Amino acid sequence: MSKPLILISNDDGYDAKGINDLVEMVRKYGDIFVVAPDGGRSGAALSITCKDPVMVKLIKKEEGLTIYSCNGTPCDCVKMAFEKLLPRKPDLVLSGINHGDNSAVNVHYSGTMGVAIEACMKGVNAIGFSSCKRESDASFEAMRPYIEEVVERVFEKGLPKWTCLNVNAPETDEFKGMRMCRMTYGEWTNEWEERKSPRGFTYYWLTGSFSGIDEENEDTDKWALNNGYVAVTPIKLDMTDYDMMNFL
Amino acid sequence: MSKPLILISNDDGYDAKGINDLVEMVRKYGDIFVVAPDGGRSGAALSITCKDPVMVKLIKKEEGLTIYSCNGTPCDCVKMAFEKLLPRKPDLVLSGINHGDNSAVNVHYSGTMGVAIEACMKGVNAIGFSSCKRESDASFEAMRPYIEEVVERVFEKGLPKWTCLNVNAPETDEFKGMRMCRMTYGEWTNEWEERKSPRGFTYYWLTGSFSGIDEENEDTDKWALNNGYVAVTPIKLDMTDYDMMNFL
Repeated sequence: MSKPLILISNDDGYDAKGINDLVEMVRKYGDIFVVAPDGGRSGAALSITCKDPVMVKLIKKEEGLTIYSCNGTPCDCVKMAFEKLLPRKPDLVLSGINHGDNSAVNVHYSGTMGVAIEACMKGVNAIGFSSCKRESDASFEAMRPYIEEVVERVFEKGLPKWTCLNVNAPETDEFKGMRMCRMTYGEWTNEWEERKSPRGFTYYWLTGSFSGIDEENEDTDKWALNNGYVAVTPIKLDMTDYDMMNFL
Repeated sequence: MSKPLILISNDDGYDAKGINDLVEMVRKYGDIFVVAPDGGRSGAALSITCKDPVMVKLIKKEEGLTIYSCNGTPCDCVKMAFEKLLPRKPDLVLSGINHGDNSAVNVHYSGTMGVAIEACMKGVNAIGFSSCKRESDASFEAMRPYIEEVVERVFEKGLPKWTCLNVNAPETDEFKGMRMCRMTYGEWTNEWEERKSPRGFTYYWLTGSFSGIDEENEDTDKWALNNGYVAVTPIKLDMTDYDMMNFL
């Protein structure tokens, strides 16, 4: 039997530490195929490139590891990999390790989770890994046994067809364990930092601070992160609010 | 009592026919504030602009109607409107009318629905309107009574706090009525069209065809569209798969 084929992407770019650490951690599970953006694409969500041509570049090819970069979005990378680059449909799609938290409603903005959701839409088991550590040289070593456990569990049990996993690790290196969580509600405030150009026009940088609205509840992913647990949040493709069917 | 304040955005740009038709249709309900991209942003999803400065430009200001364009994404437009442009929190956020269908799992790629989801995240009632008609000069007149009905219903009953509406109209102008629907599962195939540059390198345009996997089921939004109904799909912010809590 051939080895499992694992596609890996991210939104920090193919040369980020997080994705290279992830490749190294899961290489023992199969043949690794990386198709990742050629630079940072934070906040890309599930955006796709409709108005520009998309190109790929072979970065490395060795026994069990192939790496391509792509000038598109994280979601483009998955689409390109499936149709043009992978030798067959992969057995698993991983994303990350993202330099920065993708918990709570921030899944909606996340390019890391865009990869997982796109793969899920293509019917393949998918997991996004993120860490609250943002530094480009962050150590993700403490996540290794948790990543191994989640990957092994998914290989063993599979995931429901239209569900993927969002795994977030807290800032600390001393995790208390791993918890299944729900998505925390929350909101961003002070989102724009105003500047003036030398010619006097006003422009803005997107910034802001996020606070979880219900993060005091022990079932939320923010609570888990705030209390030293690795949060595993199962994410459904189907966003329908079935309680609303009598609205009209 | 002051008039309701309605924020309107889209992903086709502030000068698209769809958004101007929508403004005209709902102007009677309140003061209209448009903050929309300065050009097309199809497929922008909930992407946000992290690496470039964002700017806005006042296009028009008259009694009851203010229009700004913005160089960012649809989601940026909402964030900018709420924090920097609107005189107060709006009573309703509308998006569209999009030139093109945003039904089924395509909500995940949709900039139109990105507007509605972002507004929903900010705790305001929000509705995205899309038509299967793609042409830039399409007539959306047949949607008028349906848009009025949905807007009036939302003003009257409100929406659950973390839910927004995705309203899609079929290609025809003879609608059979309006139905509450669930999101259709589906997949894209033949997504890349390959070309060669004059210098011989390969590039790709994103394209493809979508087919609903379960569109034969009468409760799906694709079924409604295929059978001449306006589809109203309630979309939840919370993507948690609560059936998965025993995964670990």
